[in-house]
Amino acid sequence: MAVKVFLDEKDIPRQWYNLAADLPTPLQPPLGPDGKPISPDMLAPVFPMNLIEQEVSQERWIDIPEGILDILYRWRPSPLYRAKYLEEALDTPARIYYKNEGVSPPGSHKPNTAVAQAWYNKQFGIKRLTTETGAGQWGSALAFACALLDLECKVFMVRISFDQKPFRRLMMETWGANCIPSPSPETQAGRAILEKMPDTPGSLGIAISEAIEAAVTDPSGQTRYSLGSVLNHVMLHQTIIGLEAKKQLAKVGEKKVDVVIGCAGGGSNFAGLAFPFVADKIAGANIRIIPVEPTSCPTMTRAPFAYDHGDTAKMTPLLPMHSLGHGFVPPPIHAGGLRYHGLAPLVSQAIVEGLLEPLALNQLECYEAALLWARTEGYISAPETSHALAATIRQAKQAKEEGKERVILMNWSGHGLMDLTGYQAYLEGRLEDFPLPEDMLQNSLAAIKDLPKPSMAKSGKW
Amino acid sequence: MAVKVFLDEKDIPRQWYNLAADLPTPLQPPLGPDGKPISPDMLAPVFPMNLIEQEVSQERWIDIPEGILDILYRWRPSPLYRAKYLEEALDTPARIYYKNEGVSPPGSHKPNTAVAQAWYNKQFGIKRLTTETGAGQWGSALAFACALLDLECKVFMVRISFDQKPFRRLMMETWGANCIPSPSPETQAGRAILEKMPDTPGSLGIAISEAIEAAVTDPSGQTRYSLGSVLNHVMLHQTIIGLEAKKQLAKVGEKKVDVVIGCAGGGSNFAGLAFPFVADKIAGANIRIIPVEPTSCPTMTRAPFAYDHGDTAKMTPLLPMHSLGHGFVPPPIHAGGLRYHGLAPLVSQAIVEGLLEPLALNQLECYEAALLWARTEGYISAPETSHALAATIRQAKQAKEEGKERVILMNWSGHGLMDLTGYQAYLEGRLEDFPLPEDMLQNSLAAIKDLPKPSMAKSGKW
Repeated sequence: MAVKVFLDEKDIPRQWYNLAADLPTPLQPPLGPDGKPISPDMLAPVFPMNLIEQEVSQERWIDIPEGILDILYRWRPSPLYRAKYLEEALDTPARIYYKNEGVSPPGSHKPNTAVAQAWYNKQFGIKRLTTETGAGQWGSALAFACALLDLECKVFMVRISFDQKPFRRLMMETWGANCIPSPSPETQAGRAILEKMPDTPGSLGIAISEAIEAAVTDPSGQTRYSLGSVLNHVMLHQTIIGLEAKKQLAKVGEKKVDVVIGCAGGGSNFAGLAFPFVADKIAGANIRIIPVEPTSCPTMTRAPFAYDHGDTAKMTPLLPMHSLGHGFVPPPIHAGGLRYHGLAPLVSQAIVEGLLEPLALNQLECYEAALLWARTEGYISAPETSHALAATIRQAKQAKEEGKERVILMNWSGHGLMDLTGYQAYLEGRLEDFPLPEDMLQNSLAAIKDLPKPSMAKSGKW
Repeated sequence: MAVKVFLDEKDIPRQWYNLAADLPTPLQPPLGPDGKPISPDMLAPVFPMNLIEQEVSQERWIDIPEGILDILYRWRPSPLYRAKYLEEALDTPARIYYKNEGVSPPGSHKPNTAVAQAWYNKQFGIKRLTTETGAGQWGSALAFACALLDLECKVFMVRISFDQKPFRRLMMETWGANCIPSPSPETQAGRAILEKMPDTPGSLGIAISEAIEAAVTDPSGQTRYSLGSVLNHVMLHQTIIGLEAKKQLAKVGEKKVDVVIGCAGGGSNFAGLAFPFVADKIAGANIRIIPVEPTSCPTMTRAPFAYDHGDTAKMTPLLPMHSLGHGFVPPPIHAGGLRYHGLAPLVSQAIVEGLLEPLALNQLECYEAALLWARTEGYISAPETSHALAATIRQAKQAKEEGKERVILMNWSGHGLMDLTGYQAYLEGRLEDFPLPEDMLQNSLAAIKDLPKPSMAKSGKW
């Protein structure tokens, strides 16, 4: 039994899969400040038109340009692993497979869309990208992509992360990006905040505002903004993960997957693995698809499907999604990438359609799973990824209790080598669980209760 | 043209290659304090007998136990990469291939021998391993191996690294190892130093002394010491790298390699890639084999082939090797793994035999190469590995000047994600070159001039 299943570069998927084409109910449109659907050209100052076309596309399959594949070959197709050492430790009849997205140079799944976005921007004549980053996984992925495509890259990094995670910043700078702490004196938004709160630790909301401002105010018109999750085209670019997995499973004779698992913050690594299997489920396959989130930021399990802004500063359009409210400040858990108040509209709507079974887990269970993983499979996982591990272990144990075979497919979205302080806190017994109190949830949701509501007519199928 | 050449697990090499069997002149023996060759049983308190047998073996091929292969499958066979993006950037007619040893869970080639050593110790009934670590690459590899084999692991980490590199320590602890700063109050050697110099930053020499003492003084007799480089059995375990590379090159139709390149501190990653090609060279193949070191620690290019201790405290036997003197303190360059005063006896003797062409490079050229690599191939390299990159780029440029095809094979021995402060210093213009001044070299060599000299009769072949 092979531990790793490789796929030849010549067999890499040549099209991305667009779930929007198959959702039983059409995706709800984003709304502008006036409550009316926004048109593609309203996004043109922020994104290049070729990506906007992908954002609104209803095509089921979209060709991956050769120029993008040529860059992805540095690490793609990523290996599919059989987690046989974990299986042995759990003595489970389940067969556990995982995609190893940690093999990319920045160490996560994020470059799958970073490369695609940078490439499309370059095709459109753009010279410079701006973005924000919190913990730094996305910022380093975009820095990497821009280095390979010879684009300038400016990353607004939340100040507290900038100060506490110097290695992430150094990764970005090694790839030639300009990484500055946010809020910064470089933008009007940043200056306004600094004037009022010179010692603020910053926030993702502020950093998004600065990155968008820096893009749209460049008088040359050659700068655009790039987002690492949430949007439809980001989910699209990530589907290469699940499409590769299907080919790899077929290669080792697995005809049917029973459970698909991924962690979900904005939703992109989950969607990347899961959407091709969601298509199977829509077509009638019997398959459980489980996005996993922290109990401290229970967007999928306790928040409504609503219209809300993507950022705290309300600069983005209203998106139809599960949201804890744009003012939500999650408790201080270590999985920074899972601390987002919203969720990709495509993932959100798949939840509403009953296609997914979201699960919320406490961080102690997740670190326990990550430690077992490190001491069996060997790899040190990102704190976000540990949520998928814990859910996988639950499934494997259940299979044992039931004495049933079960094929589990999981996304190992990234390594944790830049995020070891969470492990330290866990090993020293300093970590706590922070399930979100009901009153905090209600307070946060109050901010969005007067916003428009999505009209979500169920299709006949569900 | 494929970027990555994979090898199926079923095709993994099943024997290690032992260069000692083919060296034109037999390897010189290690000497005890009395100047006489030491016998295998004198090493028994330090190493298990099965590894001592490998240390002195003259067999050309040694079987790799299935139990070891079963662990290595987590990342082996490692991919062979064609560095086509670098080739394009250099516009060279050279074809550059590299083994990606960064895919192992600890991120370097070190686990190849860590796993083997832990496995043989376990077979021998040992429950606990001790070792020392400087920058932390070796300590984390042994911690990883011990976690998988359920052995206790104690790592004496040079205090200044312990304080400055908390992430490396956290990696070891995540894998369950006990990592303590050296000098420590746990050993007689450590206590003696602390009494005299309570604020000492520590040194590798002190840490080795402590690790050996902790092993040999365990009254249960179930503790042994483990070394990550220099020794014959370490070189042996690493040859799986070069043996895999040969199969992978054959797979893509490369019939002949012209140049083999690896960085060399103690010599293990270099030996791992190169020794199977040294065998070809001994058999008559026309091939250049280049170990690369820093000009600040010019063991191969400016130090004599001599008998010297492996550690500063003179606890180890005398080994026949190129040595700058056991008291040598190298200038503060960032490639911590290349700051060793000695060099593996097997590599040393291959130099004396004229089989290798050592090269010394300045660190600025190496960081420049690493930056070009990060922005073309995409991966961020360990500072040690950057020496191999710079030598490779020199060869590729020369091929261009000469307008000749050339097949270059390099060992990409590890990623640099835990070593980004060197990149920071380089990017900020704070790095300097430190070629070793002649008077410092002579001062250091004075300490070994009265030790026995190896009798090195050249064979008829060389």
